[in-house]
Amino acid sequence: MIDLVIIGTVALDSLETPFGKVKDVIGGSATYASIAASFFSKPGILSIIGKDFPKQYIKYLNERGINTKGIMSGDKTFRWQGFYEFDMNEAKTIRTELNALESYKVEVPEDYKNAKYIFLANIDPELQLDAINSIKQPELIVMDTMNFWIEHKREQLLKTIDKADIIVLNDGEARQLFDTPNLVTAANSALKLHTKAVIIKKGEHGALLFTDNKHFNAPGYPLENIKDPTGCGDSFGGALIGYLAKTQDLSETNLRKAVVYGSVIASFNAEDFSIERLRKIKHQDIEKRFKEFREMREF
Amino acid sequence: MIDLVIIGTVALDSLETPFGKVKDVIGGSATYASIAASFFSKPGILSIIGKDFPKQYIKYLNERGINTKGIMSGDKTFRWQGFYEFDMNEAKTIRTELNALESYKVEVPEDYKNAKYIFLANIDPELQLDAINSIKQPELIVMDTMNFWIEHKREQLLKTIDKADIIVLNDGEARQLFDTPNLVTAANSALKLHTKAVIIKKGEHGALLFTDNKHFNAPGYPLENIKDPTGCGDSFGGALIGYLAKTQDLSETNLRKAVVYGSVIASFNAEDFSIERLRKIKHQDIEKRFKEFREMREF
Repeated sequence: MIDLVIIGTVALDSLETPFGKVKDVIGGSATYASIAASFFSKPGILSIIGKDFPKQYIKYLNERGINTKGIMSGDKTFRWQGFYEFDMNEAKTIRTELNALESYKVEVPEDYKNAKYIFLANIDPELQLDAINSIKQPELIVMDTMNFWIEHKREQLLKTIDKADIIVLNDGEARQLFDTPNLVTAANSALKLHTKAVIIKKGEHGALLFTDNKHFNAPGYPLENIKDPTGCGDSFGGALIGYLAKTQDLSETNLRKAVVYGSVIASFNAEDFSIERLRKIKHQDIEKRFKEFREMREF
Repeated sequence: MIDLVIIGTVALDSLETPFGKVKDVIGGSATYASIAASFFSKPGILSIIGKDFPKQYIKYLNERGINTKGIMSGDKTFRWQGFYEFDMNEAKTIRTELNALESYKVEVPEDYKNAKYIFLANIDPELQLDAINSIKQPELIVMDTMNFWIEHKREQLLKTIDKADIIVLNDGEARQLFDTPNLVTAANSALKLHTKAVIIKKGEHGALLFTDNKHFNAPGYPLENIKDPTGCGDSFGGALIGYLAKTQDLSETNLRKAVVYGSVIASFNAEDFSIERLRKIKHQDIEKRFKEFREMREF
């Protein structure tokens, strides 16, 4: 029985960073988010792949307790090709092949329909909305997005935001969506909507959580070896909602913990290419780093 | 009797931000640093001004308990003219007139010579070195600098760094000085020198403190109304060393507190032009915001 539905992309990524190069490795927002969530809860994915998608990857997801019944089959898998420059702050896209994603229609397996938690990982906001409408009684909807949808599907995006309880954006997206350079102003604009909480991811600078009258500032982890930041934002969101689904506690205190667990998993993810680092970490690694997050802000 | 010597500039600034415009107002690294330090300790300034410098400003500094005997007199005051664009992250310089600063030679009044704390605010690193050499037995030297000296006086700068106990840099300067995009790598390079601690200021993203095996991450204060960020870095450094001079405790715990007091004063400074906000705040405002810094990081 799954407790969390994650809609997003399952992709084959080819990318280069100053620290190496990989070709056709597993990627995609739902992949990273579901692996991150699986440390805490039982997620099920809604997505589409093609015949070219290696079966071993699906097997691996299942071994982690991730339900893949909601992954449809198309012709060819969504592919992203990109690179990072030396500062690693921003992915540069060389090519995006939508492939099967282009004709994807959300179909929700019966055993997903009673899930209480939904994570809308980065994908077309209309598909995000379809996912929401397919779940009987969601208790918490957390939503991520990206600049592409802010630019090209703003209206549909705002409709989806209107259904979400928590929105997760990176700093650039928050500035762009609410048309202000000031992140506090952006967060306050978001809180004027239906949204209960806004989380702004700032990469190496950590993450901010804004709720009604409270502000929480999560530090970035001081990583010296960043190999590949792909999927950090997705891992953050997946771990966040995974932890919330596990604890079923939406208090301010627990939201803050969820943000830190998100930061912990995202920091691990950057340490190797694709899902390699997330494959290797164990619960005690997560708890150890969680403790480090506490220590580096004590004063 | 002063406990802290601050060398730096005392300037007349003319600048524009999206929120207003000021002409020939008091500015300069030693000005901001000494006002910030004066909340905690008794600083004395080493600098030079011209005949055009309004006497009321000197009177104001004295009223705050700041010793100005070490401010020499030249012909015309150092002037900076600049502006900030909408994102307020970076000062753009229109014009710098060195004026009296060009022929400034450090002369240290007798009653400065026994000070135990030195703050080298942003000024030519050779002058910073002269200041160090004029103090009998300094116990703590904290040093700030800027990109201009990294580019144009790198060798002299490194000599001064070699004498400093704590160096304070902004993130761009740290990357530039140690030739790496990674702030952790930059900090580790600095710690391989004589330096005991490195503090990296990240503006709205807070500040990082690196000591031997410890890492502290101070949050940025969530300011919605930033009017003028001029002098925030100087205020940060001044409050930091002022607090250390007051408490005379260089433990990791107290260094962390000093970083937060630095962040508190810097966050106030951005709320108005020139020194206007710092003029108005009281000790209870500082303590209140210090408490907010604690609350926004509890999890």
